[in-house]
Amino acid sequence: MAKFLHLTAFMRPVSLHTGAWRYPGAFADANFNFAHIKSFAQKLEAANFDAFFMADHLAVLNMPVEALKRSHTVTSFEPFTLLSALAAVTERIGLAATASTTYDEPYHIARRFASLDHISNGRAAWNIVTTSNPDAARNFGQDEHAEHGERYKRAREFYDVVTGLWDSFADDAFIRDQESGIFLDPAKMHVLAHKGDELSVRGPLNIARPVQGWPVIVQAGQSEPGRQLAAETAELVFCSPRDLAGGKALYADIKGRMAAVGRDRAHLKILPAAFVVVGETVEDAKAKRSKLDSLVHYDSAIASLSISLGHDASGFDPDGPLPEIPETNASKSGRAQVLKLAADEKLTVRQLAQRYGGYSGLAFVGTPQTIADEMQAWLDEEAADGFTVVFPYLPQGLDDVTQQLVPELQRRGLFRRDYEGSTLREHLGLPRPANRFFS
Amino acid sequence: MAKFLHLTAFMRPVSLHTGAWRYPGAFADANFNFAHIKSFAQKLEAANFDAFFMADHLAVLNMPVEALKRSHTVTSFEPFTLLSALAAVTERIGLAATASTTYDEPYHIARRFASLDHISNGRAAWNIVTTSNPDAARNFGQDEHAEHGERYKRAREFYDVVTGLWDSFADDAFIRDQESGIFLDPAKMHVLAHKGDELSVRGPLNIARPVQGWPVIVQAGQSEPGRQLAAETAELVFCSPRDLAGGKALYADIKGRMAAVGRDRAHLKILPAAFVVVGETVEDAKAKRSKLDSLVHYDSAIASLSISLGHDASGFDPDGPLPEIPETNASKSGRAQVLKLAADEKLTVRQLAQRYGGYSGLAFVGTPQTIADEMQAWLDEEAADGFTVVFPYLPQGLDDVTQQLVPELQRRGLFRRDYEGSTLREHLGLPRPANRFFS
Ligand SMILES: Cc1cc2nc3c(=O)[nH]c(=O)nc-3n(C[C@H](O)[C@H](O)[C@H](O)COP(=O)(O)O)c2cc1C
Ligand SMILES: Cc1cc2nc3c(=O)[nH]c(=O)nc-3n(C[C@H](O)[C@H](O)[C@H](O)COP(=O)(O)O)c2cc1C
Repeated sequence: MAKFLHLTAFMRPVSLHTGAWRYPGAFADANFNFAHIKSFAQKLEAANFDAFFMADHLAVLNMPVEALKRSHTVTSFEPFTLLSALAAVTERIGLAATASTTYDEPYHIARRFASLDHISNGRAAWNIVTTSNPDAARNFGQDEHAEHGERYKRAREFYDVVTGLWDSFADDAFIRDQESGIFLDPAKMHVLAHKGDELSVRGPLNIARPVQGWPVIVQAGQSEPGRQLAAETAELVFCSPRDLAGGKALYADIKGRMAAVGRDRAHLKILPAAFVVVGETVEDAKAKRSKLDSLVHYDSAIASLSISLGHDASGFDPDGPLPEIPETNASKSGRAQVLKLAADEKLTVRQLAQRYGGYSGLAFVGTPQTIADEMQAWLDEEAADGFTVVFPYLPQGLDDVTQQLVPELQRRGLFRRDYEGSTLREHLGLPRPANRFFS
Repeated sequence: MAKFLHLTAFMRPVSLHTGAWRYPGAFADANFNFAHIKSFAQKLEAANFDAFFMADHLAVLNMPVEALKRSHTVTSFEPFTLLSALAAVTERIGLAATASTTYDEPYHIARRFASLDHISNGRAAWNIVTTSNPDAARNFGQDEHAEHGERYKRAREFYDVVTGLWDSFADDAFIRDQESGIFLDPAKMHVLAHKGDELSVRGPLNIARPVQGWPVIVQAGQSEPGRQLAAETAELVFCSPRDLAGGKALYADIKGRMAAVGRDRAHLKILPAAFVVVGETVEDAKAKRSKLDSLVHYDSAIASLSISLGHDASGFDPDGPLPEIPETNASKSGRAQVLKLAADEKLTVRQLAQRYGGYSGLAFVGTPQTIADEMQAWLDEEAADGFTVVFPYLPQGLDDVTQQLVPELQRRGLFRRDYEGSTLREHLGLPRPANRFFS
């Protein structure tokens, strides 16, 4: 079987690059303007993207005021409301929302995803997170985050409860016979009556089983318990390896864990986040990226560089090369990455800082051809089943992907020319789960 | 100033009448078909309704299996997801969602309503409920409902927190100056740091202040603390008086309580729920209602009648008149109502039971003229500022209201011919609240 890429769009915030909103021609309010976001979703759908993905955080992101006042992330739409609105103005594209198992209730989560799945005719996905931002605790009546392992323990049980609630009704429970007056068959309704270590939830859910059986399950945690949760439950993984070698290792690890728990490797797609900058030439693309990086304010940039180096960089000459700095115990791998980048791209301290303050993850910067080559290599080398595309600025950076990169991928037979099915499960080639209570 | 009706549509379930889905020509799945509900919302908007209102319950409604299997309420959309989807396909109509202060978190509620308000351009309203269905407790990790007074105490504090979170940013906090790179003015962001008896919430909310300042606040509780909460906080009240006298008393009570807390009476609109059946003649309308009532199954109907009577009615001759029954202590006012109805309308036991099992609240059954007369009387006598219309069956019962009753109300100058403003606050003539932290 020929290999085939899956593409989702990272859309909350609409760009992860902190300078995105300042790029010439960019919509400064792209992250918080419904008309703009609707047009982005419709363009992504016209390009046959698998899904529109919203990350989520339950607090204003914790940053120093110098960074905060320059951040376009401070005001964003909430995922259930935004994706439901988009469901009404799109037809095929999947809609993936992040929802926290630490700060929400399984009955609400099960119900909202079921409702979104029905409204969208089978396009919902749930990115299960344990919530990375510890500040969230204080918005939910707690002084601090529960401990990491404890959060993952609750997440696993939360998943069991949510999927159990989705199975409250057999797919054919609702008869609606106007003549006899029988609306549903009560024998096809199941009361979950879950009582576990963390959660106690009776059920049944007050909504029919989702169109997809269960919305697609997504995981993005990369710690040991995060990978294990993915292997046991996820059908889609968003991750952030930094390079091909890292991607291969993560891919092998997660697919290997799946085999260990008896799951079919094909039933989970791994889509690393990739920052994509398309140019007419490689130099042109690099220039766009440099221009974008240059829009990151030095004060917030230098703080990011210092963290990555494990060394205070604020005294360095911004326009000189990175000076020799002593090795420290803090962040060895981060330091090595900075040194390599400084050497490879011959960046000044300012440019390095702006790279770290802008977006420093995996990036494909080049022409449609060079980017397609890289994506193909990741696919061939079993480092990815596709990508979660991070746009550099909007709308142009998105248009460059949908109008230039996607056609190149299609020419190579690496990406669909049209949706074949109508549900997100169909786009991803995932089976519809059986109902555990009714066969 | 001429008096003027406000109309909202009770839309979850789309009809409260238990026989609605069986009426000839009715959509059996009207309550759970997005395409249908979208068309209802668009028709209500074309008729200039103030708002589309979704009640909500956090469990399958508690009923005996004989009633459950005949109930079209068992599967419904969840309010935030449905109203957000409708926001994308309507332009002016208000969108009122019910959300519980007993089983949700203020940060989530504040954020979702703010997001809905932004997506809809200022059309959101929050129906604050303490949750009437005690079964909800068991879906949220509790054995039973907290005590009534305790639930209202939390509701009052919850309101303070949610409105405080909505005020996290000044209306002009977001600058988005691409040149200087300043996105927001941090001096215009407020950290709530609420620590109260029931709740502890830090803030700020991670979304800009709602378009309406605050979404419109709705209350529907009718107990003593429910009325008090309404007087202190609400801008719209949904209630269910049974007749004009009851409506006047409730209206005077709530508006009186407002005066006592120093609020302007004009800043709260009281909209009793009214079941509206439009016919070509009064007889025709009554025949439609009888037909509809006849679709209620006797088993579930007789149980409802027994509850209202405070006496087991299952042994009565269904086709005979209501027999003499001894007075009991249970439900005196309910019993008196049944006896009056039986006498007034000369109903058999079956017909009485079907009335109670169908919909037994305030009803306007007649021609557009007689219904307009009744509505006008409620307005003139200070029993209502308008109505929450409960439809008998869909789509016809809704079309009858929008196509026949609304034009009659417009001819009389009792209802708008077009929206004047764009936000729900503007439709209702309510002021935009000041930000308590920034003036
Ligand atoms: C592409 C991607 C998207 C993510 N989205 C979210 C998110 O929306 N919310 C969140 O709390 N964490 C998100 N994370 C972070 C992870 O959930 C996780 O907290 C982080 O990778 C650390 O892993 P761990 O939680 O397993 O320790 C995301 C991670 C990646 C790679
Ligand atoms: C028109 C109307 C709509 C209502 N909608 C809801 C609702 O959606 N959810 C709910 O729990 N209760 C709802 N109620 C019930 C009230 O919230 C309340 O529980 C009931 O009137 C008893 O009053 P109390 O809670 O003040 O004791 C509604 C009541 C009316 C009159």
